[in-house]
Amino acid sequence: MDHTTVLKNLGFTDAELTGGTHVVTSPIDGAEVAKVHETTLADVPAIIAKSQAAFKAWRTLPAPRRGELVRLLGEELRTSKDALGALVTLEAGKITSEGLGEVQEMIDICDFAVGQSRQLYGLTIASERPGHKMSETWHPMGPCGVISAFNFPVAVWSWNTALALICGNPVIWKPSEKTPLTAMACAKILERAIARFGADAPDDLHQLLIGGADIGAALVESKDVPIVSATGSTRMGSIVGPKVAARWGRSILELGGNNAMIVAPSADLEMAVRGIVFSAVGTAGQRCTSLRRLIVHKSIKSELVEKLKAAYSSLSVGDPRNKNTLVGPLIDEDALSAMQNALENAIAEGGTVHGGEPVTQGVPAGAYAAPALVEMPSQSDTVKTETFVPILYVMEYDTLDEAIAMQNDVPQGLSSCIFTLNMREAETFLSATGSDCGIANVNIGPSGAEIGGAFGGEKETGGGRESGSDAWKGYMRRQTSTVNYSAKLPLAQGVSFDI
Amino acid sequence: MDHTTVLKNLGFTDAELTGGTHVVTSPIDGAEVAKVHETTLADVPAIIAKSQAAFKAWRTLPAPRRGELVRLLGEELRTSKDALGALVTLEAGKITSEGLGEVQEMIDICDFAVGQSRQLYGLTIASERPGHKMSETWHPMGPCGVISAFNFPVAVWSWNTALALICGNPVIWKPSEKTPLTAMACAKILERAIARFGADAPDDLHQLLIGGADIGAALVESKDVPIVSATGSTRMGSIVGPKVAARWGRSILELGGNNAMIVAPSADLEMAVRGIVFSAVGTAGQRCTSLRRLIVHKSIKSELVEKLKAAYSSLSVGDPRNKNTLVGPLIDEDALSAMQNALENAIAEGGTVHGGEPVTQGVPAGAYAAPALVEMPSQSDTVKTETFVPILYVMEYDTLDEAIAMQNDVPQGLSSCIFTLNMREAETFLSATGSDCGIANVNIGPSGAEIGGAFGGEKETGGGRESGSDAWKGYMRRQTSTVNYSAKLPLAQGVSFDI
Amino acid sequence: MDHTTVLKNLGFTDAELTGGTHVVTSPIDGAEVAKVHETTLADVPAIIAKSQAAFKAWRTLPAPRRGELVRLLGEELRTSKDALGALVTLEAGKITSEGLGEVQEMIDICDFAVGQSRQLYGLTIASERPGHKMSETWHPMGPCGVISAFNFPVAVWSWNTALALICGNPVIWKPSEKTPLTAMACAKILERAIARFGADAPDDLHQLLIGGADIGAALVESKDVPIVSATGSTRMGSIVGPKVAARWGRSILELGGNNAMIVAPSADLEMAVRGIVFSAVGTAGQRCTSLRRLIVHKSIKSELVEKLKAAYSSLSVGDPRNKNTLVGPLIDEDALSAMQNALENAIAEGGTVHGGEPVTQGVPAGAYAAPALVEMPSQSDTVKTETFVPILYVMEYDTLDEAIAMQNDVPQGLSSCIFTLNMREAETFLSATGSDCGIANVNIGPSGAEIGGAFGGEKETGGGRESGSDAWKGYMRRQTSTVNYSAKLPLAQGVSFDI
Amino acid sequence: MDHTTVLKNLGFTDAELTGGTHVVTSPIDGAEVAKVHETTLADVPAIIAKSQAAFKAWRTLPAPRRGELVRLLGEELRTSKDALGALVTLEAGKITSEGLGEVQEMIDICDFAVGQSRQLYGLTIASERPGHKMSETWHPMGPCGVISAFNFPVAVWSWNTALALICGNPVIWKPSEKTPLTAMACAKILERAIARFGADAPDDLHQLLIGGADIGAALVESKDVPIVSATGSTRMGSIVGPKVAARWGRSILELGGNNAMIVAPSADLEMAVRGIVFSAVGTAGQRCTSLRRLIVHKSIKSELVEKLKAAYSSLSVGDPRNKNTLVGPLIDEDALSAMQNALENAIAEGGTVHGGEPVTQGVPAGAYAAPALVEMPSQSDTVKTETFVPILYVMEYDTLDEAIAMQNDVPQGLSSCIFTLNMREAETFLSATGSDCGIANVNIGPSGAEIGGAFGGEKETGGGRESGSDAWKGYMRRQTSTVNYSAKLPLAQGVSFDI
Repeated sequence: MDHTTVLKNLGFTDAELTGGTHVVTSPIDGAEVAKVHETTLADVPAIIAKSQAAFKAWRTLPAPRRGELVRLLGEELRTSKDALGALVTLEAGKITSEGLGEVQEMIDICDFAVGQSRQLYGLTIASERPGHKMSETWHPMGPCGVISAFNFPVAVWSWNTALALICGNPVIWKPSEKTPLTAMACAKILERAIARFGADAPDDLHQLLIGGADIGAALVESKDVPIVSATGSTRMGSIVGPKVAARWGRSILELGGNNAMIVAPSADLEMAVRGIVFSAVGTAGQRCTSLRRLIVHKSIKSELVEKLKAAYSSLSVGDPRNKNTLVGPLIDEDALSAMQNALENAIAEGGTVHGGEPVTQGVPAGAYAAPALVEMPSQSDTVKTETFVPILYVMEYDTLDEAIAMQNDVPQGLSSCIFTLNMREAETFLSATGSDCGIANVNIGPSGAEIGGAFGGEKETGGGRESGSDAWKGYMRRQTSTVNYSAKLPLAQGVSFDI
Repeated sequence: MDHTTVLKNLGFTDAELTGGTHVVTSPIDGAEVAKVHETTLADVPAIIAKSQAAFKAWRTLPAPRRGELVRLLGEELRTSKDALGALVTLEAGKITSEGLGEVQEMIDICDFAVGQSRQLYGLTIASERPGHKMSETWHPMGPCGVISAFNFPVAVWSWNTALALICGNPVIWKPSEKTPLTAMACAKILERAIARFGADAPDDLHQLLIGGADIGAALVESKDVPIVSATGSTRMGSIVGPKVAARWGRSILELGGNNAMIVAPSADLEMAVRGIVFSAVGTAGQRCTSLRRLIVHKSIKSELVEKLKAAYSSLSVGDPRNKNTLVGPLIDEDALSAMQNALENAIAEGGTVHGGEPVTQGVPAGAYAAPALVEMPSQSDTVKTETFVPILYVMEYDTLDEAIAMQNDVPQGLSSCIFTLNMREAETFLSATGSDCGIANVNIGPSGAEIGGAFGGEKETGGGRESGSDAWKGYMRRQTSTVNYSAKLPLAQGVSFDI
Repeated sequence: MDHTTVLKNLGFTDAELTGGTHVVTSPIDGAEVAKVHETTLADVPAIIAKSQAAFKAWRTLPAPRRGELVRLLGEELRTSKDALGALVTLEAGKITSEGLGEVQEMIDICDFAVGQSRQLYGLTIASERPGHKMSETWHPMGPCGVISAFNFPVAVWSWNTALALICGNPVIWKPSEKTPLTAMACAKILERAIARFGADAPDDLHQLLIGGADIGAALVESKDVPIVSATGSTRMGSIVGPKVAARWGRSILELGGNNAMIVAPSADLEMAVRGIVFSAVGTAGQRCTSLRRLIVHKSIKSELVEKLKAAYSSLSVGDPRNKNTLVGPLIDEDALSAMQNALENAIAEGGTVHGGEPVTQGVPAGAYAAPALVEMPSQSDTVKTETFVPILYVMEYDTLDEAIAMQNDVPQGLSSCIFTLNMREAETFLSATGSDCGIANVNIGPSGAEIGGAFGGEKETGGGRESGSDAWKGYMRRQTSTVNYSAKLPLAQGVSFDI
Repeated sequence: MDHTTVLKNLGFTDAELTGGTHVVTSPIDGAEVAKVHETTLADVPAIIAKSQAAFKAWRTLPAPRRGELVRLLGEELRTSKDALGALVTLEAGKITSEGLGEVQEMIDICDFAVGQSRQLYGLTIASERPGHKMSETWHPMGPCGVISAFNFPVAVWSWNTALALICGNPVIWKPSEKTPLTAMACAKILERAIARFGADAPDDLHQLLIGGADIGAALVESKDVPIVSATGSTRMGSIVGPKVAARWGRSILELGGNNAMIVAPSADLEMAVRGIVFSAVGTAGQRCTSLRRLIVHKSIKSELVEKLKAAYSSLSVGDPRNKNTLVGPLIDEDALSAMQNALENAIAEGGTVHGGEPVTQGVPAGAYAAPALVEMPSQSDTVKTETFVPILYVMEYDTLDEAIAMQNDVPQGLSSCIFTLNMREAETFLSATGSDCGIANVNIGPSGAEIGGAFGGEKETGGGRESGSDAWKGYMRRQTSTVNYSAKLPLAQGVSFDI
């Protein structure tokens, strides 16, 4: 499908794609795809006010009814899967399989959220006082701001939106300025679901903010947006977190990761190689969960590096729309520069670089690079810095304790894993003294989470959780209630106070 | 018991009580009780480092074993209940029954936490991939800073400490500078429990920071204190929250409340009067959950105000150690001034004040005041401002919707209640369109929570939760794990990536 | 739609509808609809063996993948909603709205189960031993036998099947001998979903047993059917329960109810009348949750009875396919006889009967009756006996305690309710000293449960739970595991045993 | 301590120990210890009636208050630990460490239950109807009959009683006729706790039935005992289960086990040997979780058997009060005969027996035997039969699938384990296709469960669960409630029914 067809299939009109001031280019070839209309700063207050109004209505709909809207969203996503996947490829540069996988994740979270809409369980609690009962109930919070990044231009939105909607919250979405089209496509898909849902969905249940950081800042700073879910760089999060805290909001931060894999002597090396390559070079190393550090037992390091070099050399870099391509473009030239700088720094710190060179032959006009494998003598500053490109640093270890200490010795705490067949090593890695990350896997790479678990990480990753488990609680307010249905008024803790 | 006996019974030595630079006075009579040693700013880094070292050991102890320490703490608190309650009275000015009630709450939370130590439940989760299993486990976080206020000088510590300890975290406690002695007493009681517990409790599991705001700031700003639980004013919280966020910590904020009661036409008025008086004047109006606003249906307002005036006139104000006293001193002269200012402002806004005058006759030399009942024509700025004294503003309403809107129209969101016998009113108040507070009660006042529920509030109350329900999760880090025990490596969402 | 069209739309072939030995008649007019093929007793062992084989395969599919089959089933049910609803009307005699409502309930449980398939949560549990971890996981059980009754010929199957399937269990369904066609239709709908699902659904995942009680007995007695979920009469359950227990199986029993409503002085009477009439005469009184006993405060009894008499007199009895009909036929002539007998007994016990007479004019040739309202002087034996027809016994009470005692004084414990606006009464009814039923409602009738809650009752209702909450655990086996990943072997409870 | 002192310390009077008709002997030497008074069949109805009366009062006490009684019970057990442990040794023949361990387990469950008393959590559930709320609450059930066996004469009671009491249920305990004294001692200890608890504990909260099977049958058959928790043989359970089912009660069955360990090639053999010996010969093989079958990989079978033979030969058999004794007496001569018969049968089936002979030298006059290790060519009928003595059958396997199939191929399903360092083997054993038991461990033996997990098993083990996790739900009834606080009456599933 060429991109005109893709956009048409998704319901874009010419007016939407032209005449705006915001230029959209494809990382595949750097070509301009559209000029879309920007939201101005002046528009934001009215948008937030409309969201507040929508909230007043939406929160009164029963949650299972709200779930029905998300079910319809899931149906619409199924219908639009190919087109939306193709647009992800076009706008974010992902290979086709990954573009489709991202849409599948949207569908999965919708299915999950539909069931969840009948399971927003609070608790009934036995009171210590006769004739009293306690309970805990979860209520809608209000407008939920979603700030998302270019690398998962649609899935992150769906994680937040599916849950926010069933929880009774309208959504205001500020997508990456690099990927407004996928955002507009999602908005259209949701609008179709809303149209089928019927009249009890209020207007403005979902609104878009197209534009740059200033627009996002307006969202972050508004007291009328009680929840801000922001996915992106640690730098961005370091601004958002304190700002939201300062105006008593709640933030759900999903920031950077500097994700490692420990490869133990007993590891199934063939499986490890597959896991490493997918994690390190998938999405051209531009996942927050991309594998960036490999901590290999010294007894197998040479063997593993050789296998990896062989695997890396076979990877086809190029147009992500080609069936055989495994490594598409970086998002822009800045990313390519950052990659080259990091490699230079690594060399300066004693590293040996395999691959990593820019690719210009046989590829379109975008920013392409061969993934890099870098053997490092130790975990240097460059290694500890997240560079959002396909560089994998390889280091060796002697004892498991040492490996875990290396794994933990970075500022971020998103994802981590170990490859081992030894159950003592596996369990130690997962224990209180093991990985300090929000995600810790055994015999699978750090990336590719299922939606059933809570997703997120510790330390500079920001502490937020999205998707499965009880992540929905992040979108609701908790109410603890004691009801006295007796004709007496005892005090807790046996306090007496007789007037 | 005179205070010398109380202090002796709690194990204080002369050296601890004299020779320091931090002067402790009793609000009962303003007299100096002790001069305790202050922690200096220079001491703080070493204290935090010791806590980190304690963490390394403590986290490896099984949680049920950690629970045993808290069980012993509960036993020691039972033994010291009278003495510690008396010290609370001495140092914070609470009446005896409330001093003892506060210690009982400590005992309750210990009992609760012991059971919880075997119930730090994570989840096992069915994976979407064959030969895979998912789980979610909760692990210790690291040192937990506790900042507490004068008005619950011991209970708030126990809530945090009992949970922090079973969760595997050492505690560093910065009590109010007005109540260091109760803090030192708690530390001693815990030390006795630790001594009985035995050698596997590491040194420095619990440390005190005695001093002012600068010491607290050092705790708040340290990257090595991943959790800061701070109870106090909204002003304090507005500083702590963003600072902790800025260095990627987690804060649990329990800040101010401007708590209201709606009294509906069907209310059991006799019960309401008792509930109002206890909530509004108990602890001399110095609870975060004290009742500050009364929203009464116009049909019963006169009757209720008359009853309240009668009840207020019978309240004995004075030395909290006297058996008949129901209203003890304010914490200091500043509080008394703030009270008088607020009353003047209320009058200027059209209010009619009943009571509220300073009391100097028949009381010791502290800051005493008669509780004030203030009829207000509307919910003015003064009413919307939390003044931490026994002032109760009374306003009338016509429809329940109006009453709920008034209840919600303040910046804080801690506690709230309705007195009604009508189930439609009661349930509406508890629903998504009802109270916006963390606590919402029916036919009991806003104060006096049981430890089984999560305690805390929304908006400027800070959003934190302590005590019961799953508040323990605030003291742990969540780990989502996927374990592949198959010999294959499928990707989630059906992504294919064949190298 | 005539029934030929309905059957055709559902995919029935002539061969399925003719040539069998099992005659299907419609309660609407007693006419023969089909002659379907019966399962013979000799067939049962092979059917169970095939189910066991299917189990071996199905249990290895990840639960979220199993959920996908249930999602497809939900889609197919949406497609066939009108036709299946019409067949329910034809075969069970329900009015159209109720027939469709029953299918909607099937759709709801599918949506619910899809979400649940990622939430079959077990627990991770902190062990008391260092280097150990505990967890609790839920595993598939094996073939699940479903025995259902004529009155919910399809919904009960869907509740059980949706959960059984996601839990990893094949299903063997023995429907009521009066409603084999709806069962065959459901089997066809599921087959269509399976066909779309693809090759990893094993053969024989769902099988039907068409026939009488002997076939059901073979299922109940088989050691190879670990779960038997049986819905029907208490008499049936009294046989099934001990038989399944005797061969170490698990039974989920949903048996009779003798459901009452208490109407308190403060009740919204207009609402109560609507609730009573729907609960008592809906499905012609043939729901397990039908309202059978009305316990009215003496102060309002006359008024309420008058209103009910008026409402009853306006009810149209007749062909359930007519738009205006609210009361369709009884299932057969036996039911009509039972009704007349019960009314005679009630009269003999002092009752006053309003309505209740057989209706033969203006209706087809089935067993029709006007719903009966019977004023009773006390709760006699006849009142305490569940007669599965539209008889509502009305009694009066003085105090709430007395009313609750009457409510509880029957052998069954399924559903119950109170109509009151008084919160003390409402909460007392729901408390430990209130209703002893599995379902206790306030201001809604006893019937019409949502699928989000656990459905079932106590005492002779059998104790089983289906549908929402953690009812899914009834379909799985629980495994408690302790994993020692340390190099030591401590014993629990500090036992020492040194060899 | 001699037994007179032990009994005296526990508060027994001479009148209690003499003059009855029920002779108590010690398995240590067969000597008569006491003649206690028996409960007659005629007494039982009144006992049950008193329990019902106690229930009416006890259920109204708040659960946290009920928890306080269990806390006091825990304190009393701590005080009596040595004496009660010694009595367990005397009456059941356990070695001292195991007697004390059993009391420690009682203390643990009390601590657990105290916390649980504030966590009898039901759910609040979002309703699909506007103005409605759903919830699920757990209420007390009524008298709980506890039937326990000689081998855990006190712990099983405490598991049930601690939970039953906090859940609001009185207890009627029928201990093994072989161990009435420990039961009477527990009753006394609980009485002391009740005396401290105060007046709101009703009379007859706990009652004993001393006597034989007929007394137990009366309990089992009474409609007024809604819960029967029975621990003992499969034969006993096969009677109890159907009887309780027939009168609509709930049974919690903890019956026999035929527990196996798989020892894989990678196992830590030294650890395995320790685990095997403790599991197989601890409590003289008379635990329901005793290890009875060893399934060893053929590559290590010879080595492991040699090690076991060496370990077995070092075990001291004799008076359990001696510090060095590891194997005390069997419960009686019948057990010794059963052991000799089983060994003969095993030999007839091709087995090779090591040890197993009666021991008469250097031991008191009880029934002593050397533990037996029996190498079996295959899993014969004798192996598949649980003989409640210290016989361990050893078999070999080739593939893990084969080992798991052998593990599962017995009628019982209580406990199981694998020793392996290979994570794939460990996880497979714990998966849906692994062990079919209620308990499945890795690198620890099948016995010695912690109280934090749910304890119990599948198949002929009876399906009951006690102790931790949500086992408390077995002692309560579940109530699903929908409350309509709106002024409308919508029906679920969109049904319309307009009168």
